[in-house]
Amino acid sequence: MTVPLHVAFVAGTSGAWAISDIVCVTGETLPRAKALAVHEGSSSAYRADDATWVLRGVVSNERYVTRQERDALESRQQPLGRRSATRAVLIPVRKSPQWWALTQDERREIFEERSRHIRIGIAALPEVARRLHHSRDLGEPFDFLTWFDFAPEHAGIFDGVLTELRATDEWRYVDREVEIRLDRR
Amino acid sequence: MTVPLHVAFVAGTSGAWAISDIVCVTGETLPRAKALAVHEGSSSAYRADDATWVLRGVVSNERYVTRQERDALESRQQPLGRRSATRAVLIPVRKSPQWWALTQDERREIFEERSRHIRIGIAALPEVARRLHHSRDLGEPFDFLTWFDFAPEHAGIFDGVLTELRATDEWRYVDREVEIRLDRR
Repeated sequence: MTVPLHVAFVAGTSGAWAISDIVCVTGETLPRAKALAVHEGSSSAYRADDATWVLRGVVSNERYVTRQERDALESRQQPLGRRSATRAVLIPVRKSPQWWALTQDERREIFEERSRHIRIGIAALPEVARRLHHSRDLGEPFDFLTWFDFAPEHAGIFDGVLTELRATDEWRYVDREVEIRLDRR
Repeated sequence: MTVPLHVAFVAGTSGAWAISDIVCVTGETLPRAKALAVHEGSSSAYRADDATWVLRGVVSNERYVTRQERDALESRQQPLGRRSATRAVLIPVRKSPQWWALTQDERREIFEERSRHIRIGIAALPEVARRLHHSRDLGEPFDFLTWFDFAPEHAGIFDGVLTELRATDEWRYVDREVEIRLDRR
């Protein structure tokens, strides 16, 4: 994978994923659509005209993870697209201006020391695979798009982690969040 | 200033700045041009067709600065565009894949604890004003574009800081760097 990797999530009538549900968690939701296509690479061609909505992000360098944490993640995490991973969830999130006004050490303190974001996420490995896309600097409506995939029998593990993360101090800075549930077509 | 702020540096025949010199520091240089225009805002219209080159970046949240460091910077730094600041320098920099493969704590350690990037920069305040633009996630040829402006009599302060930064461990990860010297027209 070439990093930074540009990715476009295109909702409409075609794509490898059927949208089973769009849940509005915080703030404005996204319009309903039948299917979602995932286009990778900045030169990837897609018909934005036909789309109900398009969200764009870039897989980039990590912003908070330390060496020790990356080693722990890499020893357990699985790639996206395993044959068994027929369920996926896309979660676009926007954080408040207050979050972005914090300095790096203040954000890290809330993110991990106080909210245990990485440690909570590790509990879902290796069953749930994950990829983070940064959107804020692209002028997008959300700051992050996180994609998860897993086998249907591991949906409970995913849901547990999601509940735990949303109860953290970090999530008090989330001012828009939508949950898009998907099944492989 | 609305952050993230998208900025395009357009080299060609028109613009508020005359290009007095383009110095190739490391790697491939940029073509010579007569003038440089600075366009702010993503909706800003410019004729890229007429340009010799265009570099784009985004003023975004800081990635390394701590609260203590930001307070020290903010107590001394001046805004861009002071009437006396008739000299400017644009420095596009790309860092190596080795840099980007490091974790946040490893990059911070090299950036400040070992290379004293922030402390060296503070020595040029308030005479030299500075703005950092992030480019890597936009798919640009450089990772960062830094813009400096200052009065002609303070050129020595700027040059001193530049020499000091280029001698740091951090600069061993720079694999392309160009220095564009400008005079207000």
